[in-house]
Amino acid sequence: MSRDEIYMKKALELARLAAEQGEVPVGAVVVKRSTGEIIGRGFNRREYGRSPLTHAEIVAIDEASRKLGGWRLLDCELFVTLEPCPMCAGAIINSRIERVIFGAYDPKAGSCHSVVKLFELPYNHKPLVTGGVLEQECRETLSDFFHTLRRKKTAKKSDLSV
Amino acid sequence: MSRDEIYMKKALELARLAAEQGEVPVGAVVVKRSTGEIIGRGFNRREYGRSPLTHAEIVAIDEASRKLGGWRLLDCELFVTLEPCPMCAGAIINSRIERVIFGAYDPKAGSCHSVVKLFELPYNHKPLVTGGVLEQECRETLSDFFHTLRRKKTAKKSDLSV
Repeated sequence: MSRDEIYMKKALELARLAAEQGEVPVGAVVVKRSTGEIIGRGFNRREYGRSPLTHAEIVAIDEASRKLGGWRLLDCELFVTLEPCPMCAGAIINSRIERVIFGAYDPKAGSCHSVVKLFELPYNHKPLVTGGVLEQECRETLSDFFHTLRRKKTAKKSDLSV
Repeated sequence: MSRDEIYMKKALELARLAAEQGEVPVGAVVVKRSTGEIIGRGFNRREYGRSPLTHAEIVAIDEASRKLGGWRLLDCELFVTLEPCPMCAGAIINSRIERVIFGAYDPKAGSCHSVVKLFELPYNHKPLVTGGVLEQECRETLSDFFHTLRRKKTAKKSDLSV
């Protein structure tokens, strides 16, 4: 397994924790590049947190910046199971994260490649980006979650119609 | 004064609070459209908060979603003294805010008009946007802050060279 895949596996473990709590399974870790230490962890908690802000990346960046004691996450990489949305891609730019590695592409909201390539626009920081790391596993974690959700909803409807 | 200007004045008051604390002066309010109530207030606290996430808009959206008890800020408008960056424009899309009103344009990071028009891209929500409300006052609040900061730095240097 490559270095990128090892950290993506860590992000996938967090995505599965989200699924167990009924949240869309997306997980993220922030890694200090020079030491390899994971300094931020997050999974999506939009429903539990009742907030549009608690995406996996934001939670991980928040923990990492508290750990480093400042808003500049220099020498850091972010691994996330789904391509970041514009909010998270913007948070990555603002925090000066050097490199982003994501798993599944997101044609609806992905803002590092799919809808727009924010990291190629003339902002004051341009993170490097690698997409498609453990893509199939990341995509299946999401599709399994939505499949189970639909099955539960159908079962509920049949119960009601009895 | 128009309705937009009345709320922009409220955002400007918050921007001045940021300046008093040594933070780049940006202020924001979230307003419930149907009642006119301000349900979220924020000013930039990037240095104090030691976080890349504590922009005025994020703080105001966080308060508003806690007040409404959910992540969808339907029937809401956001007033902010500076054109939102990609992170904040993304948070506005994610929270389903209906309309954004900003003061000064931001040629370096503004993502509703200047660097990119995120609200015109095919995301699942497209907020309306009005720029340039009390533009001069908003711009001057920022330029006064940076002017004072430069003066202080120069004074410090002269002290050291004595």
